[in-house]
Amino acid sequence: MKYTKLAIKTNKDAKDFDSINATLLIKAGFINQTMAGVYTFLPLGLRVLNKIEQIVRQEMDKVGVEVLMPALAPKGLWETTGRLDTVDVLMKTIGANNASQNKSSAEYVLNSTHEEVITPIAQEFNRSYKDFPFAYYQIQSKFRNEARPKSGIMRGREFRMKDLYSFHVSEEDLKEYYEIVKQAYVTIFERLGLGDDTVISLASGGDFTKDYSHEFQTKLAAGEDTIFYDKKLDIGYNKEVAPSKAPRVTQEAALKEMKEVKTEGVTGVAALVKFMNVPVEQTTKTMIYETDDGRIVAAALRGDYAINEEKLTKVVGCGSLQLAAAATVTKITGAEIGYAGLLGLPKNVEVYMDESMEGRTNFEMGANKTNYHNSNVNFGRDLPKPDQFYDFKTAKEGDLNPETGQVYDVFAAAEVGNIFPLNTKFTKAFNYTYTDENGKAQPVYMGCYGIGTSRIMGVLVEKYHDQNGIVWPTQVAPFQAYLISLPGGENAAQKLYDQLQAKGVEVLWDDRDTSAGAKFADADLLGIPVRLVVSKKTDGKVEWKDRRSTQTHLISNEEVIEKLDA
Amino acid sequence: MKYTKLAIKTNKDAKDFDSINATLLIKAGFINQTMAGVYTFLPLGLRVLNKIEQIVRQEMDKVGVEVLMPALAPKGLWETTGRLDTVDVLMKTIGANNASQNKSSAEYVLNSTHEEVITPIAQEFNRSYKDFPFAYYQIQSKFRNEARPKSGIMRGREFRMKDLYSFHVSEEDLKEYYEIVKQAYVTIFERLGLGDDTVISLASGGDFTKDYSHEFQTKLAAGEDTIFYDKKLDIGYNKEVAPSKAPRVTQEAALKEMKEVKTEGVTGVAALVKFMNVPVEQTTKTMIYETDDGRIVAAALRGDYAINEEKLTKVVGCGSLQLAAAATVTKITGAEIGYAGLLGLPKNVEVYMDESMEGRTNFEMGANKTNYHNSNVNFGRDLPKPDQFYDFKTAKEGDLNPETGQVYDVFAAAEVGNIFPLNTKFTKAFNYTYTDENGKAQPVYMGCYGIGTSRIMGVLVEKYHDQNGIVWPTQVAPFQAYLISLPGGENAAQKLYDQLQAKGVEVLWDDRDTSAGAKFADADLLGIPVRLVVSKKTDGKVEWKDRRSTQTHLISNEEVIEKLDA
Repeated sequence: MKYTKLAIKTNKDAKDFDSINATLLIKAGFINQTMAGVYTFLPLGLRVLNKIEQIVRQEMDKVGVEVLMPALAPKGLWETTGRLDTVDVLMKTIGANNASQNKSSAEYVLNSTHEEVITPIAQEFNRSYKDFPFAYYQIQSKFRNEARPKSGIMRGREFRMKDLYSFHVSEEDLKEYYEIVKQAYVTIFERLGLGDDTVISLASGGDFTKDYSHEFQTKLAAGEDTIFYDKKLDIGYNKEVAPSKAPRVTQEAALKEMKEVKTEGVTGVAALVKFMNVPVEQTTKTMIYETDDGRIVAAALRGDYAINEEKLTKVVGCGSLQLAAAATVTKITGAEIGYAGLLGLPKNVEVYMDESMEGRTNFEMGANKTNYHNSNVNFGRDLPKPDQFYDFKTAKEGDLNPETGQVYDVFAAAEVGNIFPLNTKFTKAFNYTYTDENGKAQPVYMGCYGIGTSRIMGVLVEKYHDQNGIVWPTQVAPFQAYLISLPGGENAAQKLYDQLQAKGVEVLWDDRDTSAGAKFADADLLGIPVRLVVSKKTDGKVEWKDRRSTQTHLISNEEVIEKLDA
Repeated sequence: MKYTKLAIKTNKDAKDFDSINATLLIKAGFINQTMAGVYTFLPLGLRVLNKIEQIVRQEMDKVGVEVLMPALAPKGLWETTGRLDTVDVLMKTIGANNASQNKSSAEYVLNSTHEEVITPIAQEFNRSYKDFPFAYYQIQSKFRNEARPKSGIMRGREFRMKDLYSFHVSEEDLKEYYEIVKQAYVTIFERLGLGDDTVISLASGGDFTKDYSHEFQTKLAAGEDTIFYDKKLDIGYNKEVAPSKAPRVTQEAALKEMKEVKTEGVTGVAALVKFMNVPVEQTTKTMIYETDDGRIVAAALRGDYAINEEKLTKVVGCGSLQLAAAATVTKITGAEIGYAGLLGLPKNVEVYMDESMEGRTNFEMGANKTNYHNSNVNFGRDLPKPDQFYDFKTAKEGDLNPETGQVYDVFAAAEVGNIFPLNTKFTKAFNYTYTDENGKAQPVYMGCYGIGTSRIMGVLVEKYHDQNGIVWPTQVAPFQAYLISLPGGENAAQKLYDQLQAKGVEVLWDDRDTSAGAKFADADLLGIPVRLVVSKKTDGKVEWKDRRSTQTHLISNEEVIEKLDA
């Protein structure tokens, strides 16, 4: 293709965006921002997106069959699953003006995901055990009402996604298929050039399962997630769920006398550390919660940690919990908020201690008395040592995986894929059962599996760029070669262009009437893997340069063709 | 591919829909109706859609460059062109629930067409005369708030469309490119198997141009449009704009005496014809209009025709007109509505007569007197013969093209494509100019060109089917061959399947554990061009049957491969 047919221009001087991917993709003319979180894929960008999606498609064709579902759905489908009112990124459509609303006043859901559409379809066609397992997938646009989309095309109000849905006669069969998709995903990310930096991470199973779901997380400074990675197990945990053991701090052997310290006006751990002159590891946070089943819970952990409420909920064994109101805290502890501790709490309060507290001596704790904290609290003497310590803190850098004792590798990462055992959440809502060998109705199990294809384009740019522009991996590059003709090289360029086209090599010919400098700069900015220059100076040969290298080589047309026609 | 991997089932007994295409496509498992006007493309349907879109893409790549625009756009873009409040099928999005609306209360337009998105993009990159002409196209989903979608996938609330937008330095350049696209469209419809039945038809130019726009109309009983086709010119006219000459009826040479006839309670042409015992061709309709520039117009035509207000507007030379209110009619004619005629009207009323009135003698006309009509009105004697007759009637079957005198061929048709000279309508709204050779700003001209790809799938089914099911043209068929293995033929089927797959022949193997009858019926219903059967009976050979034929032939694997690997 000829550059002048692209009908776009690069703009190195365009303003910087909030992310490297948006900045580079916009400067290089791959995408255009229609509005925050909504982009047009320009000719070069669409070519990259298509290559990404084709790789995903090839691997998905091995595990499922492709369909194309609509963006619109009737509200009734989303009411059936109860998600119409709960999915906080869901959008709906109405007529945009009076004339349109007069035509039809109906409202439709703009699908943010397609369980509500695919489950009734699966149900219509597959009702006998003989029909299972099976899986449908699609690659299309999704919509999410993001408050403030950021990170360029890594998070949008409208974005491209591959979503696969599988259906099974049992949880075991789901699990078996789940592993097959996991392997397909590994292959996809390897093929996309993200294999080395992508780890499988465990994340919350949401409402669907007590097990984890799995995320594919690519290590990336611009990533929105924090991953706690255990090298030994080769498994990551999303920060939201990472099990954590606090590294221990040396403790004084001799128990000191417990003292009540007046701490009026000293609020927060940092101020307390300074005022009481104790290491932060010797401080204690005690929080009072109320559970959905009416219990009062006191949860205590080392002062340098925060409570992870999802973990605490599981520890306490309730459906949900929330921080107690100020009045309740005062009633229970006898003190204003900010002075809660574990000493002398009423009998009806259930006490849970995080494992970060274990083994400490002479530690600080709220005195359950307004304006007072205790120093030198000790287990056994001042506070009964609990039968069991728990893990309900948010993991932080330096923490160990309790299972292996390994210190986690902690890094920022972007979620490029996720796989989710939905089990019977949706099939139950639609009353979708199958008939087993004995003619009995049985519940259908379901899994869903996503890959954000436009997000991956952003991730690739974040990972593959240098100070001069993008550096596309060959398999997703919009073209394989960038041909520059300089004065005196026009005929030679035409010949080479024709030869490459005839061989089916994807070549972009910079046929613009502009300076050599501008063409060289654009070659770097666009990031096409190979730059080819023909001019008077190249004297019948072609100057070959890899985008990743500064070296150039003069080689013949035949050699160029041989190298590119691989 | 194996049938059992499709995860769908045919259902010959499913209910009939309102159109042949929906009925057959749903029974054959190509599509699923998610709601009225919104469909899921199941595996076989998606394969057909992809083939249609690939043919369109190949021809569009010759005249433009592919992009992918978003479904969402900010309202501001649509306000800029003034279309936010006027496009009566436009939809917008808002948060679907409180949580979502709290996240973001912004509303976005769901594009029904993309002029508002593409024009600013064109403007950003192309501002010098050197950059012109250029054209972008895309293939994606469009949304329209249809009141009552019908005709299956021929008209939907969400549908697939190819839209191309071209930009030019002058109207001449636009016209030149316009002809190139017209030829590309001819090629596309020929390749799709619609060439023989598709005619280019002239339609309204809307707000954009005094010229016509062009529609590609495929002759089809289920079509929503009526086309008046002139064989001599090989050009059609949409009924809305068809120029028309009424066939003349023999007239009496002797002028009879004009009479006032009491017609109290006789309303409508049919009743009048009966009551006054005159041929309908001798009756006259007179309608009183008010124009947007304050004129009063009396428009009269033969009683067997209806007024086409778009034509009349052009004849009168006003911006718009509407039927005068009853009080106005009474004030002008001196009679209640239903008795208007042309005799004795006030001087300020402009009189226009349709050419269907020309040459008549002894005709009927309202008497401008409540409860009375005149019979035997004659030009010259009772009513001045006008200097000029016009054409402002809606054409009907039997009419002639005034330009050629040819009697029109009139048929129902489905619009499969349209091309539109937008001229400066959108570029002016966005203040999009280019700099000419002399450094002067000049207006940019624009054209747009659509093809409804999912609609075409429906049109193909309407055209290519028989009593047993669909009969796909080879180039859009989901598979080239439907392989049926019957008892004793399993191994032979496996071998043939492998051989065909190795050659890249698209073959669907009906590997179901079901009856021969069910397989044969499905082969017909699905409409794959060739049916191949292997069984004990075929004795090492393959039974070949074309979908269009009842003949079968026993041939060798090698012959099958040779015939299919063309």
